[in-house]
Amino acid sequence: MQSPAPLMISHLLRTPLANTPDQLIIHGDVLRYSYRQFRSRLGRLANALRKLGVGQGGVVGVLDWDSHRYLECYFAVPMMGAVLHTVNIRLTPEQILYTINHAQDDVLLIHVDFWDIWQSIAHRVTRRVKIVCLSDTTIFDENLTDLTEYETLLAQSDPTFVFDDFDENTRATLFYTTGTTGAPKAVGYSHRQIVLHSLGFLATLAPVPGQGGLHRGDVYMPLTPLFHVHGWGFPYIATLLGLRQIYPGRYEPARLLALIAEHGVTFSHCVPTILNMLLSAPESAGTDLSRWKVLIGGAALTPALAQAALKRGIDVHAAYGMSETCPLLSVADMMSTGHLGDAATKDSAALETRIATGRAAPLVEFQIWDENQKVLPHDGQSVGQIVARAPWLTCGYINPSENDSNTSDLWHKGWLQTGDVGAITSDGTLQISDRLKDVIKSGGEWLSSLSLEQLATRVCGVTNAAAIGVPDSRWGERPCLGVEVLDHSQQHFTKIESDIRAIFLREIEQGRLPKWAMPDRIVAFDCLPKTSVGKIDKKALRIIFAAVDT
Amino acid sequence: MQSPAPLMISHLLRTPLANTPDQLIIHGDVLRYSYRQFRSRLGRLANALRKLGVGQGGVVGVLDWDSHRYLECYFAVPMMGAVLHTVNIRLTPEQILYTINHAQDDVLLIHVDFWDIWQSIAHRVTRRVKIVCLSDTTIFDENLTDLTEYETLLAQSDPTFVFDDFDENTRATLFYTTGTTGAPKAVGYSHRQIVLHSLGFLATLAPVPGQGGLHRGDVYMPLTPLFHVHGWGFPYIATLLGLRQIYPGRYEPARLLALIAEHGVTFSHCVPTILNMLLSAPESAGTDLSRWKVLIGGAALTPALAQAALKRGIDVHAAYGMSETCPLLSVADMMSTGHLGDAATKDSAALETRIATGRAAPLVEFQIWDENQKVLPHDGQSVGQIVARAPWLTCGYINPSENDSNTSDLWHKGWLQTGDVGAITSDGTLQISDRLKDVIKSGGEWLSSLSLEQLATRVCGVTNAAAIGVPDSRWGERPCLGVEVLDHSQQHFTKIESDIRAIFLREIEQGRLPKWAMPDRIVAFDCLPKTSVGKIDKKALRIIFAAVDT
Repeated sequence: MQSPAPLMISHLLRTPLANTPDQLIIHGDVLRYSYRQFRSRLGRLANALRKLGVGQGGVVGVLDWDSHRYLECYFAVPMMGAVLHTVNIRLTPEQILYTINHAQDDVLLIHVDFWDIWQSIAHRVTRRVKIVCLSDTTIFDENLTDLTEYETLLAQSDPTFVFDDFDENTRATLFYTTGTTGAPKAVGYSHRQIVLHSLGFLATLAPVPGQGGLHRGDVYMPLTPLFHVHGWGFPYIATLLGLRQIYPGRYEPARLLALIAEHGVTFSHCVPTILNMLLSAPESAGTDLSRWKVLIGGAALTPALAQAALKRGIDVHAAYGMSETCPLLSVADMMSTGHLGDAATKDSAALETRIATGRAAPLVEFQIWDENQKVLPHDGQSVGQIVARAPWLTCGYINPSENDSNTSDLWHKGWLQTGDVGAITSDGTLQISDRLKDVIKSGGEWLSSLSLEQLATRVCGVTNAAAIGVPDSRWGERPCLGVEVLDHSQQHFTKIESDIRAIFLREIEQGRLPKWAMPDRIVAFDCLPKTSVGKIDKKALRIIFAAVDT
Repeated sequence: MQSPAPLMISHLLRTPLANTPDQLIIHGDVLRYSYRQFRSRLGRLANALRKLGVGQGGVVGVLDWDSHRYLECYFAVPMMGAVLHTVNIRLTPEQILYTINHAQDDVLLIHVDFWDIWQSIAHRVTRRVKIVCLSDTTIFDENLTDLTEYETLLAQSDPTFVFDDFDENTRATLFYTTGTTGAPKAVGYSHRQIVLHSLGFLATLAPVPGQGGLHRGDVYMPLTPLFHVHGWGFPYIATLLGLRQIYPGRYEPARLLALIAEHGVTFSHCVPTILNMLLSAPESAGTDLSRWKVLIGGAALTPALAQAALKRGIDVHAAYGMSETCPLLSVADMMSTGHLGDAATKDSAALETRIATGRAAPLVEFQIWDENQKVLPHDGQSVGQIVARAPWLTCGYINPSENDSNTSDLWHKGWLQTGDVGAITSDGTLQISDRLKDVIKSGGEWLSSLSLEQLATRVCGVTNAAAIGVPDSRWGERPCLGVEVLDHSQQHFTKIESDIRAIFLREIEQGRLPKWAMPDRIVAFDCLPKTSVGKIDKKALRIIFAAVDT
């Protein structure tokens, strides 16, 4: 009994085109148009790309800020049977070159802001690649006039394009994830996986009676760059729901806050850094954020940031996933985090629920494995590696480099190895405590680097913290702390260091931390080393600590 | 790029077992247990069925009221690779026999209430079939003691059973739909279709900000018999969400109302007849129904019934689908039907929205075709056959009888022919006006039998109406009306007939009806002829009208 109906990205457009054809898609001050016009533009883009030689299996790379063009590529490129390569513009030019060559891009859509990067690597691209230039204004640099420009290309193309069905397992998207070791790794998702992920995310976020969730009345603005795990899948979900969508272009705090106010944005998603940046911006105080729901992922949502957000009336919840999981795995339980504003910051149980990495999404299953792959109980105490299965997890890295051992480690016995360490309570609440490789192994015990970091950030003046294990001949490893401080004068830092040690001491005395958790060294940083996606680069930090060894 | 993760019914259990294992499943006063125990019972049932010889592809038929046992069969039977045949106990014994033989049932689970039916047909079952007896009490008729009893069987079986993954296109369910012609037709759904239907229904009902929708706080009780299109898929959805589930056994109005009150039921689904039955029951007045959301399908939700429900504070919405569509196709828009109670009955636009068959569900696409299969515009005016596509529609009837022309008519050019006639507005709202075969073709024009019926039911004393076309040598067909009346004394009926004619006349004078819509004849019934699922049997009605021809 074969099913005659494949799951296609084009099918996500069925209901918005039929039910809400006049709903708007808005790219800041650049362009606004209806879903009906969106469909025409998809036809134009597909015809234009076809004219540039893109066919089934062709690869279209995009280097752009979060724009209407990006959304158009999210749909038109996979819908014509081609693969959308979302180029990570935060990588080094050398890494960008690597990904373009590895992906075998046939066409590259490049925003003028990234033109210098392109010029520096173009001569080393190993394939013949056609370039389309993207710009938010119609005036171009004279040097670029011989290039095809996106809007001109669309204007010259026919809006009629029949997007046929094909095998749902056809690859739709492709992007690169950077570990702390080795070359960027290629991750791709099929039409089937993206459709299932969209439905699975809705089944997680939508069946919520009160706040927090996602519904057809929301106004959506992404704050996760669209090159990052296809915007966590939200542009597909927002389109399926027929939401008003706001694309903010380049992320500038004042501009993002103005867009939230102007369009009454109610739903966004981002890493903690972005939310922190917005709350710290001078324009923040004058902006009403009390209708705004924000899903936080990519790094731990700290109690301090959650409280700061709640104080502003922002309905904030943590979610958990990774590049290899499309990314949805779990979302904080929204059933028991009712009130907002000042009252919310006082409800510590609700706060714990908001910042917990949550409960498995429908169709997702977690297990906790010890070092010997033995399954541990969900008792809230047993800590081990989190492994997962779900219908939208990536099947494996694409064309991995031969000597990259990470690749073969992704799947084991039908379970995806997240590389994260945590515990699960008897009611399914997952709390990630560390990256497997960041766990500090001291005296035969595991110390969660995250819990040490959270303690350090409780100290006033500490804006960020990173705990690492530094090799130690006696204990195996010993914990060390790097802290980002606002004022790193020696006098100020001496105070901060003593405050941190006092907090650790109290935790140790009260039995909440083992005594070997006290950091050997605490070092102040203006800015901790970061990876291209803004996460703390612990590999770099370990090198720094080794270099300044006492 | 093949996906390693099939869509299996067993996967629907992942989150409820991990996140809400202590949530309850309740069968009236018979039994209540947790989801954790539910999982053990599924293991026991699977082991018991395996011992009875059920393997991959085996068929298990069930004749039962809506019970915990039925829910257990919904999961355990497909999860072990077998097919669940939900036997329609409303069919005639002769039809039941036909379906048992056609389905090739290996095991039959039969409630003692249907024992007489079984005894009358058992000797004509063409295969060797094993019988398991179902009862809500532990005391059995002595004549039945040599039979295997369900609870005894489970108690004797091991709860441990590993439900492996297999091909997602494996058939999971099987049931029979009775048209007005020919033998019952077999419809089946695969694991993939049921999982996708569950996600699609959630994507329809859940992303609603206020009332009407479905969320994790709901208490669920089915009021569509579980043999009917696997309870419209809701037992699967309720389980996926980890809801408290109430199974009511046999439908008795007083008992159903008591269960709603006792368990605080917030979500049900049913045909209009059942809702009407509950509202008319003497116990209704004393029951608080103001927290109850009801989705109505299977027949048109009349304005009168919707108003009666709203007056009681019931949040009622229409939905549209059929046995061949799993059944979800569309649901009334819940975004614009805010308030309830007395106020709601005065908001005529919101009432229209509630009773409209709604907007296409995510991934569903409608077209309207004229008689030559030309696609008509969605302008709210153009009327034709509604055709649909979606990933969960049945692929075709199973082993159809050779001379059944309906079978080959189901699919055409990749679209499922619903056999319903209607129009779609520019914002996607579908309004079904008739069954294609019930349309009255008079003088070359189409008259909607539904619109004539709705006019007739406006008259006080008319509880139900059916309009049919009676052959006419001059006009092709002429409309005739059968009306169900409370008091069918001649005197009373003369008044009703003249009231109906007055309403028709006014509609004709005001240009809302063509003048040939005035019924030739109006006939009073105590009870209009009904099919086994409670719909008006227009085929029988045509015979009656032919017989009493003037």
